[in-house]
Amino acid sequence: MRNLFEIDAWKIIEQKFDLSKQKQAESIFSIGNGAFGQRANFEEYYSGDSLQGSYVGGVYYPDKTRVGWWKNGYPEYFAKVLNACNWIGINIEIDGELMDLNVQKPSTFYRELDMQTGVLTRRFKVKFAQGKELQVESIRFCSMDDDELAAIQYTVTPLNFSGYIKFTPYLDGKVYNHDSNYDEFFWEEDSHKVDIQKAYLCARTKKTNFSVATAMRFSFWRNEELLNIHPNISSSDFYVENNFEHFVEQGNAYTLKKYVSIVSTVHHSEFSVIPRSINKVREAYVSGFNSLLDAHKTAWKNIWSKADIVIEGDVAAQQGIRFNIFQLYQTYTGKHAQLNIGPKGFTGEKYGGATYWDTEAYCLPFYLKTAEPAVAKQLLVYRYNQLDRAIENAEKLGFKNGAALYPMVTMNGEECHNEWEITFEEIHRNGAIAFGIYNYVRHTGDSDYLKDKGRKVLNGIARFWTQRFNWSKDKKQYVMLGVTGPNEYENNINNNWYTNYIAKWCLEYALKCESEFASETNPLLSEKECVDWKHIAENVYFPKLEGTRIFLQQDGFMDKEQLSVADIPVSERPINQHWSWDRILRSIFIKQADVLQGLYLFKDHFDLETLRENFDFYEPKTVHESSLSPCVHVVIAAAIGRMDKAYELYLRTSRLDLDDYNHEADEGLHITSMAGTWLSLVEGLAGVRIGEDGLTINPSIPEAWKQYHFEILYKNQPLRIEVNQHGGTIENLGSSELSLILKNQAYAVSSMEKITF
Amino acid sequence: MRNLFEIDAWKIIEQKFDLSKQKQAESIFSIGNGAFGQRANFEEYYSGDSLQGSYVGGVYYPDKTRVGWWKNGYPEYFAKVLNACNWIGINIEIDGELMDLNVQKPSTFYRELDMQTGVLTRRFKVKFAQGKELQVESIRFCSMDDDELAAIQYTVTPLNFSGYIKFTPYLDGKVYNHDSNYDEFFWEEDSHKVDIQKAYLCARTKKTNFSVATAMRFSFWRNEELLNIHPNISSSDFYVENNFEHFVEQGNAYTLKKYVSIVSTVHHSEFSVIPRSINKVREAYVSGFNSLLDAHKTAWKNIWSKADIVIEGDVAAQQGIRFNIFQLYQTYTGKHAQLNIGPKGFTGEKYGGATYWDTEAYCLPFYLKTAEPAVAKQLLVYRYNQLDRAIENAEKLGFKNGAALYPMVTMNGEECHNEWEITFEEIHRNGAIAFGIYNYVRHTGDSDYLKDKGRKVLNGIARFWTQRFNWSKDKKQYVMLGVTGPNEYENNINNNWYTNYIAKWCLEYALKCESEFASETNPLLSEKECVDWKHIAENVYFPKLEGTRIFLQQDGFMDKEQLSVADIPVSERPINQHWSWDRILRSIFIKQADVLQGLYLFKDHFDLETLRENFDFYEPKTVHESSLSPCVHVVIAAAIGRMDKAYELYLRTSRLDLDDYNHEADEGLHITSMAGTWLSLVEGLAGVRIGEDGLTINPSIPEAWKQYHFEILYKNQPLRIEVNQHGGTIENLGSSELSLILKNQAYAVSSMEKITF
Repeated sequence: MRNLFEIDAWKIIEQKFDLSKQKQAESIFSIGNGAFGQRANFEEYYSGDSLQGSYVGGVYYPDKTRVGWWKNGYPEYFAKVLNACNWIGINIEIDGELMDLNVQKPSTFYRELDMQTGVLTRRFKVKFAQGKELQVESIRFCSMDDDELAAIQYTVTPLNFSGYIKFTPYLDGKVYNHDSNYDEFFWEEDSHKVDIQKAYLCARTKKTNFSVATAMRFSFWRNEELLNIHPNISSSDFYVENNFEHFVEQGNAYTLKKYVSIVSTVHHSEFSVIPRSINKVREAYVSGFNSLLDAHKTAWKNIWSKADIVIEGDVAAQQGIRFNIFQLYQTYTGKHAQLNIGPKGFTGEKYGGATYWDTEAYCLPFYLKTAEPAVAKQLLVYRYNQLDRAIENAEKLGFKNGAALYPMVTMNGEECHNEWEITFEEIHRNGAIAFGIYNYVRHTGDSDYLKDKGRKVLNGIARFWTQRFNWSKDKKQYVMLGVTGPNEYENNINNNWYTNYIAKWCLEYALKCESEFASETNPLLSEKECVDWKHIAENVYFPKLEGTRIFLQQDGFMDKEQLSVADIPVSERPINQHWSWDRILRSIFIKQADVLQGLYLFKDHFDLETLRENFDFYEPKTVHESSLSPCVHVVIAAAIGRMDKAYELYLRTSRLDLDDYNHEADEGLHITSMAGTWLSLVEGLAGVRIGEDGLTINPSIPEAWKQYHFEILYKNQPLRIEVNQHGGTIENLGSSELSLILKNQAYAVSSMEKITF
Repeated sequence: MRNLFEIDAWKIIEQKFDLSKQKQAESIFSIGNGAFGQRANFEEYYSGDSLQGSYVGGVYYPDKTRVGWWKNGYPEYFAKVLNACNWIGINIEIDGELMDLNVQKPSTFYRELDMQTGVLTRRFKVKFAQGKELQVESIRFCSMDDDELAAIQYTVTPLNFSGYIKFTPYLDGKVYNHDSNYDEFFWEEDSHKVDIQKAYLCARTKKTNFSVATAMRFSFWRNEELLNIHPNISSSDFYVENNFEHFVEQGNAYTLKKYVSIVSTVHHSEFSVIPRSINKVREAYVSGFNSLLDAHKTAWKNIWSKADIVIEGDVAAQQGIRFNIFQLYQTYTGKHAQLNIGPKGFTGEKYGGATYWDTEAYCLPFYLKTAEPAVAKQLLVYRYNQLDRAIENAEKLGFKNGAALYPMVTMNGEECHNEWEITFEEIHRNGAIAFGIYNYVRHTGDSDYLKDKGRKVLNGIARFWTQRFNWSKDKKQYVMLGVTGPNEYENNINNNWYTNYIAKWCLEYALKCESEFASETNPLLSEKECVDWKHIAENVYFPKLEGTRIFLQQDGFMDKEQLSVADIPVSERPINQHWSWDRILRSIFIKQADVLQGLYLFKDHFDLETLRENFDFYEPKTVHESSLSPCVHVVIAAAIGRMDKAYELYLRTSRLDLDDYNHEADEGLHITSMAGTWLSLVEGLAGVRIGEDGLTINPSIPEAWKQYHFEILYKNQPLRIEVNQHGGTIENLGSSELSLILKNQAYAVSSMEKITF
């Protein structure tokens, strides 16, 4: 393991300026507030290798699709989150020489991301060509308290001189997406205005017409004293600045406090974005940096009070899990039903910042257990709002009668992905979305969403499955041909066990909900539909290995050469970088949990022996070449008592980005797989599971740890779980009694009661 | 049926100028000589919609591959034949007004392609803005006698005026490929020179460094009188011209005779291309237009003497089959082992002009039966010369020990195609290449190529198959997973019957050749290889439909919804334009012959009842959405006595481009599928087949035809076959006795003997 940055329980710390890892650091030290986010680019000019990135949730551009060979049904565009106005910019110049850490190379450098407070701090000393030395400190945050605000406190101290320094705070909207397919510029200017110590810039996305207003104000201080300055103002297309030269005295600290507001038409009308951003930034200016910072810290405190996991005895593990929780909340807070969780969050551009099935399969359980139900519910509402588009998507592929196929990748409900084997065939995503509804209900006990909205989603999905199955005269059962399962190292396979299973379950769950609510509300299904669905659900074909409990991943699986991962030379790993695609496809090797993904979701349906046989069959064949893979194996391994294996796999995921295992942290972080890591710990190591029979807990602890504890929310009751090497405690912090099964024994835990095991 | 052009036994005729079909006409009236080719663009400037196209065989550019999502193993580039120097250009100008048929719109227009002589003629009248009227005639050809020469005779006659006309013959090398992936310009200039009545221009392809020298000379005539003129010369990058104004007298014909030579480094050294082109064009100028034309006509006469098919009683059918034969010989003459047959020949850019399996599967039998063995042999030598590259291709995909995988698409032996389901999985092409060797031997009786070169190709291919099969513990047989068969409406299937069959056959044939020649030459295979290959060949798994003679296209075929083409609404045909790709994949519908392709190639291996059952099973499921599909069905239908069906399918292919069934003739012609049409007639309707037992003939004739006859070459003996409504004759025009089976009866036909049936 290589630790890129310092190990600390609450902080990410960089002690040295290392040119070669700036892009990694830009990702790792990213800050965000669920509405927008900012890579850890420098405020001052930087000529080194950098991915300048500022992303505003929900603002996307339909970038023209790039394909090799067009297939009928491909989407015309890939909606991607846009790199938006650079709001952090503050240039520093002495004697005509711009401060640029790529040129002057700092003699000391310290960067710290405090995850407890969500504050990014940077301190360095730098010497200009003529020997003038500056001490610089920048502190910035994206407010968790008000997600249209950010602030920067930028302090320079002349160490060995008195003289003039030029300060240039600016906004720059001329920003390009690095992942643009055709090197297009995605923005047009709406308007801008600049005045003394204030400015705004409003840019509009081409085609989608999102307006984003970015407003700034700033003040200038010597030590604690507010200074009067007379900056020059300047502007051009997509650019506004103030600049002023100030005579600074050696040993004194000069601080520029820059307040920024980012307001978009994702949440407000076209007419209000500019005045709102101006008003917000004025209010921020009046409140002052410290008061905004306090509110921000309080908001983080509230999040941590529910979501923290404390690990004692292993600081690296502690830092790893907190980093994941921190990044997830930086990406998504549940305040807006228009937003979702992009695989890279606000830390990079890859995957377009769009919504994948990762949301339901990995992230939803995290938010369900660590935040009020309203947070997770927004993710469900997001899909509900896109139901019409999902029906249109299905129609484009030849389905009818309200069948809904949710897209593989989306911003607005339309499909963006254009690889037929994924777009058209990796349809199990529909199942994950249905399962998300079920998962929400069993966690929260709230069935209102289900009754009014969820059922419509379930029925659309069920209609899709009924049409997607076909009757095999040969097998005299329903089969599902030409799919790609979660294991994307197989394409166009028949009867993927996982897809067939979740499809069958969807039909049954939709029917169950119909029978539960049809009397209260109006029936949504015809009698014929109910009969047909039942017939299909009862007659689905599943591939099995005769004489065992093993479910076969797909038809023909046993024709493959029966190898295990140990047979692959180390020099050929990861296989996706060494083997041609056809070789990967026909090999037995599994990219990520597939049958096991089904056993994970539907664990209640299977006995332990079934889990064990399947785990032993599939784990040796799984190369885990997706960051989403090991977590599911951890949960199953823990369930069958393979704690060593569980912990070994947990370690693979727990510090994926912090230690940059995959050498791609420079492009952004694996936000959604961070939820997988959290799952590994809570559902895997701690064995916390909310199933059909309610809450079960089967805690275990790695030998390397002394103790760990965390809280979960279950039926909106907080429950504290502490595990140590000798046992642990379960404490009901809620106001009602909670039933649970701890290590196979049923308990009813009263309010404020603590049980010891 | 819509006839775009006039029906005539030997000519393609256009009687009217129709702007909307100029691009189709440019394709249909294309001329070529196997070495280069030219779309029927106008000599004079034309501002209308046009695909200016001049292509030089073997000159290609590695255009950077365009993909949606990169897969490991994809080739970096797609080699494509280049649109090269426009050599036909002759501009005409009166009073500063350029002649442009898109502006002046001709009052009469006649265009004729004489297939018997390979001459393109165009005549039209045109009136300029000031009322001056011209009669224009252009005659041009690409010499079949000397495939580095072309000539144009361009005559203008002032009808109602005497006055000045400006003539500008030129060469223009600033030509772009319309199918460039990134709008790159593929050429750099080498040099150019222009002098009185002569010029050359030499351009070099970027990256591949092919030099193409194009030289021109011209003379100017009034009626039969050679005129002395004093043209201005002018040139710029990639451009050379002469221009002169000449006072023309009403009623007299003024003729510009332009001679062009095109010489490339495909066949000559870098130093010789310019002088060679200059010399050639000087000799041509000295010989004169008529003498060159005579030699050209004689060359065509020789081709037709062997290759013609005469159909009496159906002029449309007669025109159709001649058009196909004509285009095939315009595309490929067998003079150069560097050249092959691009799917669009020299008539367009689509598919890059590169080599596909079409060559061996469709074109080879045509050349084998209509030309001396040397012509077809060049196609085999082409592959032999690329064996090392085929081994490299296989190595890139993880194969070893000399396994060879020929590319799906190639110019120089490297793979160009980049769609994993085709590039990596449509490996049956390897089988077709092996079969081509076998086919050559059984047609010609010449085993020299086989002994020295063919065996090496066969062994490379066999080594690929041995590694591509894997032992299924489950089936206790060898299986082949993850392939695409000829039916490209299936991807990544297991145990494609056709691929398994041809692979097994390859192993057996390679072993047979080894045992035949190992004593004469050195053994090429180790004993272990022989034993292993035999074991594999004897234990290949084939999917079958129990209780029938039906071979199943692939594993799981019977799980599909069992529909027939009649079940598809007409409004949804062709399905590739109406259905999403996944729907096509999981449907039962077949793009082109797959199992039947195998029954066609290996007809001798199966009894008639097997052919019949499989035809009846597959034909109703086949949508024939490839121009290569119906021909194979024709042959099988004819073999099992379904003559109505055979003729119905024959009609689908016989005038595909002439009547532009697929609405894409504007992009170029379907050259390789023209060989398929020829196959339908000769192997299908006429039942001429060269199999393991020698030559069999089972002739039949459509009711609409009075009589048809043609010759074939078999063991280098010409045989004339005539079929009429009452019977027909078989005449051995060769010098040796020929054994054959006519309508299931064996004959020994002496030299010059004619048998009547």
